[in-house]
Amino acid sequence: MLADTQALTDNIGNIGKVRESVLDVAMDYLAVGIDPEKTNICVQSHLPALAELSLLYLNFVSVGRLQRNPTVKEEVRARGFEQSIPAGFLCYPAAQAADITAFRATLVPVGEDQIPMIEQTNEIIRRMNAVVGRPLLEEIEAIVPKTGRLPGVDGASKMSKSAGNAIGLSASPAEISAAVNAMYTDPNHLRVQDPGQVEGNVVFTYLEAFHDDAEEVEALKAHYRRGGLGDVTLKKRLEGILQDFLEPIRDRRARLEQDLDHIRDILRDGTQTARNVTEQTKSEIYDGLGLFRL
Amino acid sequence: MLADTQALTDNIGNIGKVRESVLDVAMDYLAVGIDPEKTNICVQSHLPALAELSLLYLNFVSVGRLQRNPTVKEEVRARGFEQSIPAGFLCYPAAQAADITAFRATLVPVGEDQIPMIEQTNEIIRRMNAVVGRPLLEEIEAIVPKTGRLPGVDGASKMSKSAGNAIGLSASPAEISAAVNAMYTDPNHLRVQDPGQVEGNVVFTYLEAFHDDAEEVEALKAHYRRGGLGDVTLKKRLEGILQDFLEPIRDRRARLEQDLDHIRDILRDGTQTARNVTEQTKSEIYDGLGLFRL
Repeated sequence: MLADTQALTDNIGNIGKVRESVLDVAMDYLAVGIDPEKTNICVQSHLPALAELSLLYLNFVSVGRLQRNPTVKEEVRARGFEQSIPAGFLCYPAAQAADITAFRATLVPVGEDQIPMIEQTNEIIRRMNAVVGRPLLEEIEAIVPKTGRLPGVDGASKMSKSAGNAIGLSASPAEISAAVNAMYTDPNHLRVQDPGQVEGNVVFTYLEAFHDDAEEVEALKAHYRRGGLGDVTLKKRLEGILQDFLEPIRDRRARLEQDLDHIRDILRDGTQTARNVTEQTKSEIYDGLGLFRL
Repeated sequence: MLADTQALTDNIGNIGKVRESVLDVAMDYLAVGIDPEKTNICVQSHLPALAELSLLYLNFVSVGRLQRNPTVKEEVRARGFEQSIPAGFLCYPAAQAADITAFRATLVPVGEDQIPMIEQTNEIIRRMNAVVGRPLLEEIEAIVPKTGRLPGVDGASKMSKSAGNAIGLSASPAEISAAVNAMYTDPNHLRVQDPGQVEGNVVFTYLEAFHDDAEEVEALKAHYRRGGLGDVTLKKRLEGILQDFLEPIRDRRARLEQDLDHIRDILRDGTQTARNVTEQTKSEIYDGLGLFRL
């Protein structure tokens, strides 16, 4: 799901960016190999049932509970919203609960920072099930992948385009090279022969995430720890792996950009399928709760 | 508009009542003479664009602003929500803004207590217009009718079925009689010959609201003030007027109850018309803001 309406909750003054991101992210999905024949790609703003369920779920959660949500608190802080939180931003956990449950998802892959959102969704599900008197919706489970959120090349906890510490999926060979060269390693590892630290060393984090050969990664770690493996050599190895990894993605991305109508067709089809599913779920929830039906 | 989804914001544990109210209120509308050929009657929960606009408008209002809304504050107090306000309840001003603007209403008849809601709607309109850079929506105006909200028969500021101080539109002749007899007058007007007070005297409030003959109402006030007009005589006069006023409404209501399929047909037609209008407004707003469109 391309979450363009959720993006408005912290981008209401920057709607052009939100609009343009939709096709961009769709192309990223396709470029990394998500196959629209197997995986449905849809646009949130074109699925009214998500808005209807979001509004409904707001009745199953208190204002205080939303304000205590750790992810919301952290994100409010990160955005400098303290003085004036947009109501839509405070309420977005209910919208996420709608996004998850409307598709009857039960396993949700998330970064560790998003686990409170899964808990919040389950609270809403439990409260609704209690009102209905039977398990209308199944509780959901978070799956936190081994490689969750990649750190920025500077070692910051989050990559972000605006912070300039990210490697884009369509980064050029030169950009990849520059990003790897700028990577945060062990600031105390001054001479090649010195022992170096692997923990918190971004190069190793990326090697673990992107190198298929786990044995080689372990050997590199051991070498780095005992000394004799220089940052330049190490970074060359990672750069080669990232160049090989990103080249086909960048090429596919470039081809996809040549035919935006095709991307729109994929989104149109996917959104229609999603509309059928989400409308069905909405009906079952409305009926289960006993709302008036014409 | 029959506001069944808004009713959930303070009735989430009592959905059966909300469901049953929809046809009841529709029959009340028809019984008092609202003509579905002239006036469109629709059901809120069947109009997805209202939910979509509600969620959108939440991005144009801060949590603090909603918490400072005088109507919300008063209603939170009245419902004992202080400790745990449902998020849906705090957010309902944005939903009301959606209900008003989706129909491109510009004049909104409200009780005086609802004026802050109109101001809140205009704030959302102004903020959205500022983001768009042109007047996408027109600001709205409140119309407060001379007879706004009728007091309860006990003199309480609000009639309510649960407080037992209301006269229902389908009240029986005996119920009307009992309600008028129980009406709060001037507690110091003990003997017929004593001067009585008209201000705060519920019988006069109702006479002003329901008696067509303003001159007679003025004459009764003058007589009551100078003494010699007893509460029993005065109440008999009001009772006659209310009996005459409510009899045809009660009769029409009884006939309407015989054919609920007809009521459903009226709501189905009205809701379809409303759906066309609200979807159109939503599209114009989404386009105006520059959201992604497939």
